[in-house]
Amino acid sequence: MAEPLLDGLIDALRRLPGVGVKSAQRMAFHLLQHDRDGARRLATALTDAVQRIRHCERCHTYTEAAVCPTCLDPERDASLLCVVESPADQAALERSGSYRGLYFVLMGRLSPLDGVGAAEIGAAALLERASDGVVQEVILATGFTAEGEVTAHALSQALRARGIKATRLARGVPAGGELEYVDLGTIAHAMGDRR
Amino acid sequence: MAEPLLDGLIDALRRLPGVGVKSAQRMAFHLLQHDRDGARRLATALTDAVQRIRHCERCHTYTEAAVCPTCLDPERDASLLCVVESPADQAALERSGSYRGLYFVLMGRLSPLDGVGAAEIGAAALLERASDGVVQEVILATGFTAEGEVTAHALSQALRARGIKATRLARGVPAGGELEYVDLGTIAHAMGDRR
Repeated sequence: MAEPLLDGLIDALRRLPGVGVKSAQRMAFHLLQHDRDGARRLATALTDAVQRIRHCERCHTYTEAAVCPTCLDPERDASLLCVVESPADQAALERSGSYRGLYFVLMGRLSPLDGVGAAEIGAAALLERASDGVVQEVILATGFTAEGEVTAHALSQALRARGIKATRLARGVPAGGELEYVDLGTIAHAMGDRR
Repeated sequence: MAEPLLDGLIDALRRLPGVGVKSAQRMAFHLLQHDRDGARRLATALTDAVQRIRHCERCHTYTEAAVCPTCLDPERDASLLCVVESPADQAALERSGSYRGLYFVLMGRLSPLDGVGAAEIGAAALLERASDGVVQEVILATGFTAEGEVTAHALSQALRARGIKATRLARGVPAGGELEYVDLGTIAHAMGDRR
């Protein structure tokens, strides 16, 4: 069976993260058999998105406008700047409803072995932004992974060198966490930061 | 954050089978950040596929032509007709290299509760095809699930009523299967069909 269009569709679906051959096949057959309308909608959504979604000039998140709605929102507390790795992390913070300041999205994290240095995460733009006289505190909300920690450490050093207050999200036992199953490093941190 | 294009892309990706909100978000961000070329390719592949892929007139599988390459292959043994539920099942049989006959793809299986009856799986076309005088044996290779078994049973009854030989793939212990972990129904079948 040589079906170039079908094979091409399966190959294109395989480029999605987390999609292997079997899933790509299942997706292709599903779309062809049950959801040709969904396939057309997806094609349009992809085309529109790559053509028109760009980075916000101020916070670097994805947006259709020059400056994203969050940065333009006058209700936001402009004295707080929260640094996150990705728009997905930003969305998670927004859903938590615990933060009403502004954001700076790194679109990555420091990872020298992968060629991601200070320039790639826009460190200079962050430092400039944080020095604008309006920002009073930069909250480093990068992940608590090795690379996220390195990124937070490097940025906090650079911010503090300029006299800017830099804080980090608290570590501790997650809600619903049973101590028995929480890793020892987390327990040690939760003990040290007890309140 | 109200970003209609980004939300639209995430919604469209969620319509893919097995993709939830989190995966759709990850896919959208991945495409935007690392693979805009892949997104464009996927859009084109989707558009081309829904426009040009249709069902083979003879075996009902997906093809760009009126009759698929498999049906047109003169090397195939036209006296054997293998009935499968889907092009994915057909592809699996092809990969096994154990079959050189022709196919009939049901594009589903009998499932009265879901409104899938004999008409939806093209039973009439199958019976007509099997009665063409060339086909000597119909091999029922629907799945060994409840619905696949019902489908195989109904089709074999109809075929035998017309004097057409209908066989079923063998059941048994799968290669690499340890008896300890094989379900009891399979063991009982393997014992009954021992050779």
